[in-house]
Amino acid sequence: MESEALKTRLKIRRGEWGRPTTGLGFEQANLVILPKRYAYDFLLFCQRNPKPCPLIEVGDEGSHEARCAPKSDIRFDVPKYRIYKKGKLAEECEDIEKYWKSDLIFFLLGCSFTFERALIDRGIKLKHLEQGKNVAMYNTNLKCNPAGVFEGEMVVSMRPIKHRDLVKTIEITSKFKKAHGPPVHLGSPAEIGIKVLDVPDYGNPIDIDEGEIPVFWACGVTPQLIALRKKLDFMITHSPGHMLILG
Amino acid sequence: MESEALKTRLKIRRGEWGRPTTGLGFEQANLVILPKRYAYDFLLFCQRNPKPCPLIEVGDEGSHEARCAPKSDIRFDVPKYRIYKKGKLAEECEDIEKYWKSDLIFFLLGCSFTFERALIDRGIKLKHLEQGKNVAMYNTNLKCNPAGVFEGEMVVSMRPIKHRDLVKTIEITSKFKKAHGPPVHLGSPAEIGIKVLDVPDYGNPIDIDEGEIPVFWACGVTPQLIALRKKLDFMITHSPGHMLILG
Repeated sequence: MESEALKTRLKIRRGEWGRPTTGLGFEQANLVILPKRYAYDFLLFCQRNPKPCPLIEVGDEGSHEARCAPKSDIRFDVPKYRIYKKGKLAEECEDIEKYWKSDLIFFLLGCSFTFERALIDRGIKLKHLEQGKNVAMYNTNLKCNPAGVFEGEMVVSMRPIKHRDLVKTIEITSKFKKAHGPPVHLGSPAEIGIKVLDVPDYGNPIDIDEGEIPVFWACGVTPQLIALRKKLDFMITHSPGHMLILG
Repeated sequence: MESEALKTRLKIRRGEWGRPTTGLGFEQANLVILPKRYAYDFLLFCQRNPKPCPLIEVGDEGSHEARCAPKSDIRFDVPKYRIYKKGKLAEECEDIEKYWKSDLIFFLLGCSFTFERALIDRGIKLKHLEQGKNVAMYNTNLKCNPAGVFEGEMVVSMRPIKHRDLVKTIEITSKFKKAHGPPVHLGSPAEIGIKVLDVPDYGNPIDIDEGEIPVFWACGVTPQLIALRKKLDFMITHSPGHMLILG
């Protein structure tokens, strides 16, 4: 029998999804695909930066099935991919069959969508879900620990949280070590280099209402920012908010 | 001012120690040093086998100072090293200056000595410490998840624990995720491929008395067994029980 997660992956594979994977109950993952020559540096970068890059699984060279997503094919099972070439976003596409090579290695990193269900179950409202939006994501001035060619600043996701829910939110997300864990910052966006909260670098903007405070979590889009800044030859990732569903 | 940990490291560096590092309160680490050509496979092996190989730190190529042990020099600060060449233990020595090369990379893995202090503080007796012995370690039939050339079985450390302390022991060690975490096996050594408990593969034997049960934890000596079995060209490690002191 097919699990609900597999059913959703197959729907995505058939091209019947076409939207972000926010608001689903499943565990989800960020995807990074790199040629073997970058793999050591990136694996080390993840080891040194477990908050933005909590490693869930690394494929063998050329493999495109993830063990934590049985019967998956990571070339087709993400709703939208990004192709980075020489430090530029070259293309967004719905599968990566034409780019696949036998020297590619995939990395799955935990995703904050995984803890969103736990927050909702404890009565914490997540406005981007209620409004049918992708989460808001921002480049920051928080420096990552460098590893070889991978060096740069952290990307964060932001959720407006009511003051009365702050402690509970931190408590709950602290338990999700493999999904970015507790927030990296609360309030005062300027302190982490975010100038205009209304204009996220990725995803959709969301209002901060009376009684709310913006809460920031390390984000698995971080490697994409670094690929751009460090002008990596080649890298494939998911498109922000369009994750691989696990299970 | 020098910390107690640094003082002990300097004593070791001066050659004034000359024994295992069991029974000290400090956080401690297993040491693995490999040429760059093996580094990716080993890093991946650690990622896939966090119980025997919980990664604490990976050095940059050629670096011999560990960030988690300020002012350390990993070429001198372990009481005893092992040099493995072509799948054989070539030498045991007190420093590795003559073997050091700029393409070497060090890996520090968490060590069960770290949780021993927490067990003692909660009133759990550790007989090897009371008897001034090194812990007993065994090869097992528990398969590790392979990664490139690294493939083989787990080494475990064993401590006799009283029945009434078992739950508490598991509870406490479960919290030390970066120091092998909870046991991998309780009782019945034969089930994990240990034939004669009186003859450990590393360290000192210890009696199991009335009312006690042998408890097994994943052990950072695992990479040494694999280096032997897979006939790696070159690898340097600590000698079992002779760890790097952190802090």
